[in-house]
Amino acid sequence: MTTSLSIHDLLRRAKTASRPLARLDRNAALRAVQVALQDAAPSILAANEVDVAGERAKGTSEALVDRLSLSPSRFESVLAALDDVIALPDPVGRVVSGWRHPKGMAVQQVTVPFGVIGMIYESRPNVTIDAAALCLKAGSAAVLRGSSSALRSNRAIVSAMREGLRASRMPEDAVTLVDSTDRGSVTDLLTARGLVDLVIPRGGANLIAHVVENARVPVIETGVGNCHLYVHSAANLDMALNLLINGKTQRPGVCNALETLLIDREVAPLFAPAAVKALRSAGVEVRGDGDTAMYAPGVVPASPADWDTEFLDLVIAVRIVDDLDAALAHIERHGTGHSEAIVTQSLTAARRFQDEVDAACVYVNASTRFTDGFEFGFGAEIGISTQKLHARGPMGLAQMVTHQYRVVGDGQVR
Amino acid sequence: MTTSLSIHDLLRRAKTASRPLARLDRNAALRAVQVALQDAAPSILAANEVDVAGERAKGTSEALVDRLSLSPSRFESVLAALDDVIALPDPVGRVVSGWRHPKGMAVQQVTVPFGVIGMIYESRPNVTIDAAALCLKAGSAAVLRGSSSALRSNRAIVSAMREGLRASRMPEDAVTLVDSTDRGSVTDLLTARGLVDLVIPRGGANLIAHVVENARVPVIETGVGNCHLYVHSAANLDMALNLLINGKTQRPGVCNALETLLIDREVAPLFAPAAVKALRSAGVEVRGDGDTAMYAPGVVPASPADWDTEFLDLVIAVRIVDDLDAALAHIERHGTGHSEAIVTQSLTAARRFQDEVDAACVYVNASTRFTDGFEFGFGAEIGISTQKLHARGPMGLAQMVTHQYRVVGDGQVR
Repeated sequence: MTTSLSIHDLLRRAKTASRPLARLDRNAALRAVQVALQDAAPSILAANEVDVAGERAKGTSEALVDRLSLSPSRFESVLAALDDVIALPDPVGRVVSGWRHPKGMAVQQVTVPFGVIGMIYESRPNVTIDAAALCLKAGSAAVLRGSSSALRSNRAIVSAMREGLRASRMPEDAVTLVDSTDRGSVTDLLTARGLVDLVIPRGGANLIAHVVENARVPVIETGVGNCHLYVHSAANLDMALNLLINGKTQRPGVCNALETLLIDREVAPLFAPAAVKALRSAGVEVRGDGDTAMYAPGVVPASPADWDTEFLDLVIAVRIVDDLDAALAHIERHGTGHSEAIVTQSLTAARRFQDEVDAACVYVNASTRFTDGFEFGFGAEIGISTQKLHARGPMGLAQMVTHQYRVVGDGQVR
Repeated sequence: MTTSLSIHDLLRRAKTASRPLARLDRNAALRAVQVALQDAAPSILAANEVDVAGERAKGTSEALVDRLSLSPSRFESVLAALDDVIALPDPVGRVVSGWRHPKGMAVQQVTVPFGVIGMIYESRPNVTIDAAALCLKAGSAAVLRGSSSALRSNRAIVSAMREGLRASRMPEDAVTLVDSTDRGSVTDLLTARGLVDLVIPRGGANLIAHVVENARVPVIETGVGNCHLYVHSAANLDMALNLLINGKTQRPGVCNALETLLIDREVAPLFAPAAVKALRSAGVEVRGDGDTAMYAPGVVPASPADWDTEFLDLVIAVRIVDDLDAALAHIERHGTGHSEAIVTQSLTAARRFQDEVDAACVYVNASTRFTDGFEFGFGAEIGISTQKLHARGPMGLAQMVTHQYRVVGDGQVR
């Protein structure tokens, strides 16, 4: 167990464990980890039941308890997903580019592991397995800091994963749990310069903000999505309605779901009433500006805060905008750089929207719900980056490595 | 002038100015900037003379005064270099990858500008022109915070550049000087989340450390290079001597120069005396460990701090190591992740060195001095990244952009 070690000791061990990973058979290790998790299923599920009971006793909402809960079938599907990770191509050792220097050296830009990747995340214990497996596949050691509500589940999971690593003669410290519910352990992880090569937070807006505010190590910000659908004057309104209902209701609790609808004034008389009616039929609470209320009487008045809220629920803010410029200005002011969509048949409007929206994913006539590592064909997803360094948008295995230049010569000097 | 504006106001203006840059003719703007700088040459050189006289009066070292000084010929060569920037391919709007989603949408990963790039740098006023030109070419607004010693020079330069922008009907706030010598202005720049998309510090270890410690916005760390040359037991010793002298003496003040020589014990009896003799002939002070002193009596004893020192001068630390493992361990402990080299004829040793050294550039039988954007064929260089996110190693125009995914469909939903 790791309880008695300081975070710095943990990280040093993880760093040492990370060194040979690029050169070892990481797929064999993942297979051994899968077997060990399978063998430990009864104790993992039992630990999870204790976590779940603890949260219920605290009066935690059923939605959160559900996120924490590992049913046997959920656990099986997480284990089955390891097959997919094993089947993915190795992201390490790819030659990204290469050329000959005029003096004759061969230069290659080759992908290499980061080293130690810290994951800071909230209640879902399946992330413990997912994230550790992806880090391992990418040749990095994973240092995992889950939430206190899942501590028993995470202990049981990590203990099994380390057993699998030992069984395949891999350094067990390649998967390490920060076995602490103390906030200070997060700060220690975020400030351990030289020991952590990258931190990826996964969770709500507060968690992300805390990490970004306190980190002195490199961070890839993920997740917060205040996504807009702009129905342009030249939109196919049937298509717009379909995209709206899909984007808002197919899975409202995720970051690529719609949060705000912007309707061009030209089509508002027709579209606003139809949209509000369809949203209501789908059980969505509509919060509209004054103009929306004019076309669809009885909508809840939107407050200024609604334009900046990621509802993650069956609630949507609706605003009538004068034109494309007004829509772009609204998105620039309130968007979080995640996913934005326009519905239009106008090539000019589509081009301007894609050229001018500063977001990871910009859609024309398609649902923002496609912003996803699997939908993008990456075969995995560690998160959706909403920042601009290294990875932007869905982040798969290919984004979980860095690179180095390797130069081979026969004595060349400058 | 910008003196009376707060940093946040400056940044907001820069952000606004940055928006249309991707779509404007940035090469035409650079040509106009070049003309304006040429026209303003007398006032720029006069301002620089005042800066130089001020530093001399303070008793600043001649080496630093030289870095600050813009002679007419230096200024001409900086202006001429703008031709090269103009001639480089546009890094914005490249389609990095693209595919068809099974449901039929076209997905493209396209390079886009960062937005606002903050540059924090030390005395050389030519960086003001270089860096602003590269940011502009990459479609981003440049917010420049130079050193107080160059403030007059930078004012004159930025004023001319903005005149050039106006002349070509580009937003002049695309090049903005932080006209303050207050340290607080650096902190403001480093913490303006949402207003600065990227900060690149250029300067000494203290400046870089200050930026990394205080930044709440994305930073690409550059520059500190404690570079090693390891002479393996199977080295061609003539080649090793040549690489050593070139790496240490050709330009000792730069980050890719050698700072430490590691000699394999097997070749030390032959190589250590030869190396020390050649280094001394080249005017290099040699600081050796006990074993080095045994083979080359009279070397200055190395102190523990010498292994971690970027001398940037005609000084080198020399250590005898037992084998490749010991060399790798020394480099892991003392290296800064910049450039590391092995001299060997052994393929096995070369492969292990390249696989195991965690640095931006790893050399076999070639000088670390090649770590450079121009030598790498990038046609430009904004710095050498020693961190692992987004850019690692020489950073040219291609690394000064981010990307976004653009998805075009005809109504697809999940």
